[in-house]
Amino acid sequence: MPELRQDPTTKEWVVIAVERAKRPDQFRQQPQDEAVSTQKERLCPFCPGNELLTPEEVFALRDSGGKDQPGWRVRVVPNKFAAFAPEESTQRHDYGRFFHSLDGFGFHEVIIESPDHELSLPLMSDQQILELLHTYCHRYDALRKNSRVKLILLFRNHGARAGTSLAHPHSQVVAAPIIPFHIRQKYDVAIRHYDDTGHCLYCDVVEAEKTAARRVVLDTERLLVFHPFASQVPFETWIAPKRHNPCFARLSFEEKLELAMVLRKILRGLYEALSNPDFNLIIHTAPVEDEEKPYFLWHIEIRPRLTTAAGFELGTGIYINTAIPEETAPFLKSALAQVPTGV
Amino acid sequence: MPELRQDPTTKEWVVIAVERAKRPDQFRQQPQDEAVSTQKERLCPFCPGNELLTPEEVFALRDSGGKDQPGWRVRVVPNKFAAFAPEESTQRHDYGRFFHSLDGFGFHEVIIESPDHELSLPLMSDQQILELLHTYCHRYDALRKNSRVKLILLFRNHGARAGTSLAHPHSQVVAAPIIPFHIRQKYDVAIRHYDDTGHCLYCDVVEAEKTAARRVVLDTERLLVFHPFASQVPFETWIAPKRHNPCFARLSFEEKLELAMVLRKILRGLYEALSNPDFNLIIHTAPVEDEEKPYFLWHIEIRPRLTTAAGFELGTGIYINTAIPEETAPFLKSALAQVPTGV
Repeated sequence: MPELRQDPTTKEWVVIAVERAKRPDQFRQQPQDEAVSTQKERLCPFCPGNELLTPEEVFALRDSGGKDQPGWRVRVVPNKFAAFAPEESTQRHDYGRFFHSLDGFGFHEVIIESPDHELSLPLMSDQQILELLHTYCHRYDALRKNSRVKLILLFRNHGARAGTSLAHPHSQVVAAPIIPFHIRQKYDVAIRHYDDTGHCLYCDVVEAEKTAARRVVLDTERLLVFHPFASQVPFETWIAPKRHNPCFARLSFEEKLELAMVLRKILRGLYEALSNPDFNLIIHTAPVEDEEKPYFLWHIEIRPRLTTAAGFELGTGIYINTAIPEETAPFLKSALAQVPTGV
Repeated sequence: MPELRQDPTTKEWVVIAVERAKRPDQFRQQPQDEAVSTQKERLCPFCPGNELLTPEEVFALRDSGGKDQPGWRVRVVPNKFAAFAPEESTQRHDYGRFFHSLDGFGFHEVIIESPDHELSLPLMSDQQILELLHTYCHRYDALRKNSRVKLILLFRNHGARAGTSLAHPHSQVVAAPIIPFHIRQKYDVAIRHYDDTGHCLYCDVVEAEKTAARRVVLDTERLLVFHPFASQVPFETWIAPKRHNPCFARLSFEEKLELAMVLRKILRGLYEALSNPDFNLIIHTAPVEDEEKPYFLWHIEIRPRLTTAAGFELGTGIYINTAIPEETAPFLKSALAQVPTGV
């Protein structure tokens, strides 16, 4: 059973993923390529026909077939090696003064993005990306109904350097029973700005990036895409809405449509400009209890994994970025001109 | 010139390393192994005989020879591609309300640990590690004299997955003109504990780990080695002193001697148990202005890079650890029994 433990020196939580845990001797270092290639040869649990290799599906978009049968276009299943489990309690355990833990209640699902094992997210059509966004919103709405769920994170790892362990295209969603310290701190900053100005900090920053213009990659009717002033990594890319809205799942229909086109264009642009880089895609959305608060704005962060955070970053929290956002933004912008239409 | 930029949403700083910056088109993704192998074939600037390929040395331990000549055992030079530069000011620049930067004043040095290109840190002798610790303390003392230096970080990246770009064994030291938000937050937690109890939080946690005993790897007269209760990564290892002391460079002679033996033993134990894993070694020490305060304790953190932080970690700050500290600590402890003596 998964367990959440609190670091007594930072108050950050860690998941000790007992279900996924390996024996200590299984951590011996292996060449990175080996780990990826052996995986390719195994039977893929996400391919059509292998539905019985996964836990029972909780959602699907289908052309044909019934539950756990082929015929789906997008399929959502509980993660077999979950970091959080719905059958757990949220019981707290205190081992003396410094060691606190929580049972690992929560949800951890895999969103299989396509039946095609080889289809990479950046190469999907607008329609496929739209169905994926629709599925993201559906899972958010379904999981938020559980009153013990505090925070829902939708994310996507692409490539071995971004932490992918299975090649078949998939996203993940985690519904956690806590609001981590890391998120609370971001909120503190945003709330302070709101108290000082009456404005949403994130809306103000998006507006300021639009006005500065030098780091803007794409400016559409409802969305702004930019490389932030203080980007932590080369080609860090934010996609943010122009309308205040803390909750990703409350996208309007027009916003969702526009986001599908913009997201595909940006992913394809990065794919072309950087030769299919590994990346993490993170959907930042407010904690469930703050869905309607005036101080947060949903946004998508894409972090290509082109460099490695090392001792300095780990020790100080300061990233050393070897790219200049004012140079990467126009470079990516010009790559977008080469991107084929997504129909 | 390097530039520090502040993220308006988190207040964290980022170094935009203009000196090291590549053109946007140079970030195209390449196979990881390729990057390492081409590097081996190049002339190594850290090997004896190539001293003129580095900036002038600022410190050395020598058997023979003069400055910038062979004959050294340990040699310290300014980093040619520095994240901070001593000729910079600490001038602040404000571009409108949200975009603040500082000129990148500071020091960034490379500590070349041995003339032997192939000698891996975990395979060094007690005496070599002792000389390295001596050099660490020397550089700390030298850099702290500059009144604009606020924080000094000593760290060591081992292997490509830990962010090493040069194979020749070396550590790094950075002297920064700011105390980052990340560090301030850890201090807030420690100060609150001190206010509540009159104790150093870190001393109390070390004592609690010693009492719990299950995660202790090594317990010597002056030091405790353990896998923390809320370890973020498999085999995360802390080495901490039993005497309250916030400042690493104020080690007593006996502590330094004992630390050399303990550090070698732990690094060699990890090397044997995990087949020479990539790792980051970070020396946590108080900001210069807090060297004598009652609420921090220097400690060494070793983070093997056996897993990859992915979208979930980046989005929430919660790490998913697939190892159980109560299992890895005894495993490493038993590996220590096989480690040859370090003389």
